[in-house]
Amino acid sequence: MKIKKTSSSRVFKLDFKNLSFGNYYSDHMFYCKFINGKWKKPIIKPFNNLKFSPITLVFHYGQAIFEGMKAYKDKKNNVFLFRPEENFKRMNNSAKRLEMPLIPKSIFIQGIKTLIKIDKNWIPKDYGKSLYIRPFMIANKGILSALPSKEYIFMIISTPSESYYNKPLKIKIEQKYSRSAEGGIGYTKAAGNYAMSFYPTKIAQKEGYDQLLWTDSSTHKIIEESGTMNVFFHIKNKLITPPANKKILNGITRKSLIFLAKNLGIKVEEKNILVLELIKYLKKGLVKEAFGCGTAVVINFFKTIGYKGNNFNLPILPKKKRLSIYLKKKLLDIQHNIIKDKFGWLIKVNNLKYEK
Amino acid sequence: MKIKKTSSSRVFKLDFKNLSFGNYYSDHMFYCKFINGKWKKPIIKPFNNLKFSPITLVFHYGQAIFEGMKAYKDKKNNVFLFRPEENFKRMNNSAKRLEMPLIPKSIFIQGIKTLIKIDKNWIPKDYGKSLYIRPFMIANKGILSALPSKEYIFMIISTPSESYYNKPLKIKIEQKYSRSAEGGIGYTKAAGNYAMSFYPTKIAQKEGYDQLLWTDSSTHKIIEESGTMNVFFHIKNKLITPPANKKILNGITRKSLIFLAKNLGIKVEEKNILVLELIKYLKKGLVKEAFGCGTAVVINFFKTIGYKGNNFNLPILPKKKRLSIYLKKKLLDIQHNIIKDKFGWLIKVNNLKYEK
Repeated sequence: MKIKKTSSSRVFKLDFKNLSFGNYYSDHMFYCKFINGKWKKPIIKPFNNLKFSPITLVFHYGQAIFEGMKAYKDKKNNVFLFRPEENFKRMNNSAKRLEMPLIPKSIFIQGIKTLIKIDKNWIPKDYGKSLYIRPFMIANKGILSALPSKEYIFMIISTPSESYYNKPLKIKIEQKYSRSAEGGIGYTKAAGNYAMSFYPTKIAQKEGYDQLLWTDSSTHKIIEESGTMNVFFHIKNKLITPPANKKILNGITRKSLIFLAKNLGIKVEEKNILVLELIKYLKKGLVKEAFGCGTAVVINFFKTIGYKGNNFNLPILPKKKRLSIYLKKKLLDIQHNIIKDKFGWLIKVNNLKYEK
Repeated sequence: MKIKKTSSSRVFKLDFKNLSFGNYYSDHMFYCKFINGKWKKPIIKPFNNLKFSPITLVFHYGQAIFEGMKAYKDKKNNVFLFRPEENFKRMNNSAKRLEMPLIPKSIFIQGIKTLIKIDKNWIPKDYGKSLYIRPFMIANKGILSALPSKEYIFMIISTPSESYYNKPLKIKIEQKYSRSAEGGIGYTKAAGNYAMSFYPTKIAQKEGYDQLLWTDSSTHKIIEESGTMNVFFHIKNKLITPPANKKILNGITRKSLIFLAKNLGIKVEEKNILVLELIKYLKKGLVKEAFGCGTAVVINFFKTIGYKGNNFNLPILPKKKRLSIYLKKKLLDIQHNIIKDKFGWLIKVNNLKYEK
């Protein structure tokens, strides 16, 4: 790996008290090209613009995938990645479905570790804050024929972040538009999945909602996910979440919450949730909590669920009875190395040497 | 419109006898930025690379749409566009669904006309050849949040072209993967629609097919389109084609062929075609022809249709009985201004003055 460090870090400009999300990008970026069937030697260099031809394939035929993950600091300034192997696997699942080259572990994991070590001053220390890391791959050259590219660029950039959303959400059960279909790419982190959700989300926002609760494209009778988050419902002392299939994103936070909850003695059921079943429970006041989860948000609570013009407000349980708050704290405690990581989820990056 | 012409045209390098598709790009490109809710002054400048930030939104969230159209020459070197207003309308339908800004007609149509006039030496003259024009819009700036961009770039580039495919295709009726879903973006020319088709197509190619015949995502029982083409079947002296809906691309060649065929006294039916119905007709030898159509290919014949491992070869009718050949010639005759354009489809660009 080649490393060109910046001579003028921008980190002093960073206001760690007001990070928001995506307002600052760390000093360096990781860059690796795939040409003639091979990954070239990667380089870490100062974050900067890149030149692209107008026929760059991602502009025309959308071959683009990404991942989202976070680096955390503990009180002693040790730096940790949270389950990067899971991102590595999912990135390559996305790559396969989009007919893009697989990324070797040595490039993906080592790239992230080396970049994070160089930009470690960009990692916030406060509880809940982190450095959001964005590995992504785009198709480079094309010839305007709708064929997979023969050249790709894999990059990693990062941005210091607080929580992604900060207020409880009002969500609408979508009954017309679809995010995903059987046999499609809904389970991948393909760029195109996001673009297609913007317009239906905008419509919901005009109606006073924050986000959509997506349903299956064939019948709109089965709950899938919300916005860019997996969903959980706390019903009758149980957490219920749709099963990971080819239509919903196989979330790493989702997976971690399920494992963590079970480990803490909370019942979790992965099963299809029918819209009408959910409505029935909402009407009876049996839905104690509902929330979305994802790397960026960790957990985001829902306050209202709308269905065909009717809004169902969720109760506000005493804090101690809220599984969402309990699980979010447990997860963050692990991520910040406050409680012992029994599951081997944290990967310490401090002592890593640069690979030259 | 600002115009910066190149001082060294590359057109002399062009081998008009061996154009293929997408191997050469004309000297100039049209470029227009959308910032702060407004389209800025467009510019035509030499075709060249452009600088993009690593957080360019199209790389991460796939907001990208395009159009495809062609400019033709007649024997007197008059230059014509074919139904550009249809592309203009469809571009904005795509823009709406992808939550991107609408493009004013003055920018879209005038941009194409002015660019084509400047690069008129790039338009091949031979019958069937043309200058393929690619208007496209991409989301520019973002902040790594999955939200629509606030900045966009609309560009137009062009490439001299022969026919896109040149041999009759062996196609496979897809029974697992999906291109499009009810409530999705299948009817738009969104970049993401193409990327998602590459992997299933690759699988079919490994099985010896050239392209897929897509079916509906819910049941895989209804024919939709093939590769990037709309499809027609010549059955019992009738042309049958799936109806334009929200799941298939509303093709301009499709629309033109339907209109042209009806005008020539050929029966055309737009209706859902069940896979099993098609198989029944194939078994009985009642499918006289099957073909795909689109701007790039005009018409591309199918020689074999595969279904669950069984291949059905289509008959090779005498040329005079083939509606596909008849219609393709009629359409090209109109496009090259050989027969009178009764429908007002050709737009002459010669006498247009540049807008400065």
